[in-house]
Amino acid sequence: MDKWKRSARLVDMTQLLLSQPYKLIPLTTFAERYLSAKSSISEDLAIIHEVIHNEGNGELETLAGAAGGVRYIPKVNKAYADDILSALCKRLSDPKRILPGGFLYLSDLLGDTTLIQDIGRIFATLFRGQKIDAVMTVETKGIPLAHATASFLRVPVVIARYDYRVTEGSVVTVNTVSLTSKRMRQLSLSKRSLAEGSRVLIIDDFMKAGGTVQGMIHLLNEFQAEVVGVGVMMEAPAVERVVDQYVSLTSVKTMDIKNQRVEVEFGNFQL
Amino acid sequence: MDKWKRSARLVDMTQLLLSQPYKLIPLTTFAERYLSAKSSISEDLAIIHEVIHNEGNGELETLAGAAGGVRYIPKVNKAYADDILSALCKRLSDPKRILPGGFLYLSDLLGDTTLIQDIGRIFATLFRGQKIDAVMTVETKGIPLAHATASFLRVPVVIARYDYRVTEGSVVTVNTVSLTSKRMRQLSLSKRSLAEGSRVLIIDDFMKAGGTVQGMIHLLNEFQAEVVGVGVMMEAPAVERVVDQYVSLTSVKTMDIKNQRVEVEFGNFQL
Repeated sequence: MDKWKRSARLVDMTQLLLSQPYKLIPLTTFAERYLSAKSSISEDLAIIHEVIHNEGNGELETLAGAAGGVRYIPKVNKAYADDILSALCKRLSDPKRILPGGFLYLSDLLGDTTLIQDIGRIFATLFRGQKIDAVMTVETKGIPLAHATASFLRVPVVIARYDYRVTEGSVVTVNTVSLTSKRMRQLSLSKRSLAEGSRVLIIDDFMKAGGTVQGMIHLLNEFQAEVVGVGVMMEAPAVERVVDQYVSLTSVKTMDIKNQRVEVEFGNFQL
Repeated sequence: MDKWKRSARLVDMTQLLLSQPYKLIPLTTFAERYLSAKSSISEDLAIIHEVIHNEGNGELETLAGAAGGVRYIPKVNKAYADDILSALCKRLSDPKRILPGGFLYLSDLLGDTTLIQDIGRIFATLFRGQKIDAVMTVETKGIPLAHATASFLRVPVVIARYDYRVTEGSVVTVNTVSLTSKRMRQLSLSKRSLAEGSRVLIIDDFMKAGGTVQGMIHLLNEFQAEVVGVGVMMEAPAVERVVDQYVSLTSVKTMDIKNQRVEVEFGNFQL
């Protein structure tokens, strides 16, 4: 195989690094792949870092030493994130979303793969720099968001389920109370799905009083796991809230079912 | 803003194209962004195409004319796909996965974001070149696979649900029979989630007799939608199968519960 030209190397390295966030790639891997000197590889990495960093899309982090290498830490460009979330607030404020019972229809947004990738990138940016072993969510609607976030953090996803399923093996179950509907439900997590002592980021689509998030926290306690943070796409006003530490991307400010008006603004996140 | 150097342009274009599969980007967008002549942009695109294509990772497709531009069509490198699926078969053949009732524990695999991205890319490669408006799956375990596949095809995901939920608005419901358990279940799809006449790719984690997939096909009939294809991560032997057109990535060849042996091989896919 021939030595690669710098232009081809830059394209290939960009592709390899950006498609594998947080994966440490030894410089030797690049040097061998391109039959190039490590000094040339380092120059290439400096160019890639500069472009990504200047665009606000993250950075390349270089770790020295025998176990060293370079990895891509994704971030979201603040102006881009503001645009994405402004557009999301506008879509959420559409009165056609109001469903009987005062729920908002979200399934189209949660099925929009481009939006979900963007939100995953925003959550990964908000919780970066913390040691995270897994992202947890509850079936069903939180799953796409949890997966998108976890893929940018390069960690696995664990899913708590409302009903016991034969396909989960042995499970740990806790009782959870929806403070909105006053209904009791059981929430289970497969014993095999999470190692004891894991550091876990909770991600969900929607939070009102926080009963579901609290249920997930109780489950995590059973696994001696630690909650690193809680991120929700949308929060709704609640008289009483059982979870006080959370990051919301959007927040329902007004919900007037009688006059079919809903107003959604930015949540409490700080980018 | 200054004119960009070729090296920086290549990194930035690679990033923009590869992070947005199937999105058509007009050459003018690049020319304006980099203050460069279209001829330089075309040369850059040729370099990017060559690297991606030679690595088996897809291609850049250029569409001429006023509405033209360039877009990235992702593909999977065959050798890489074979490695991924061989490793998957090995993980699936672990007897510790056998659960009471002859089920296999899959949740760890379906939570492995790197694996799920790879499988999504493989499905997107297998069904590329077809007009696809949406990817459909059924809650819960198929969701990560459906989202990964759809993100590489740049189409939305629609999720059929077993129980009627208030958060779905009006739904269409069909009855479905599990040929394995002989149990009847209802499967619903929100009316708003799919336009009539859509062309839909069905993706699921597991198929035995195909009752669930058949239920999804019945639902799609109610929406006058067309099934473009069916892709499953794993098929299991069935005495009688109600779906005969499907692509499987892996296939359970032996399942001996008494002696705790399971053997999983490649499915019927043709890359």
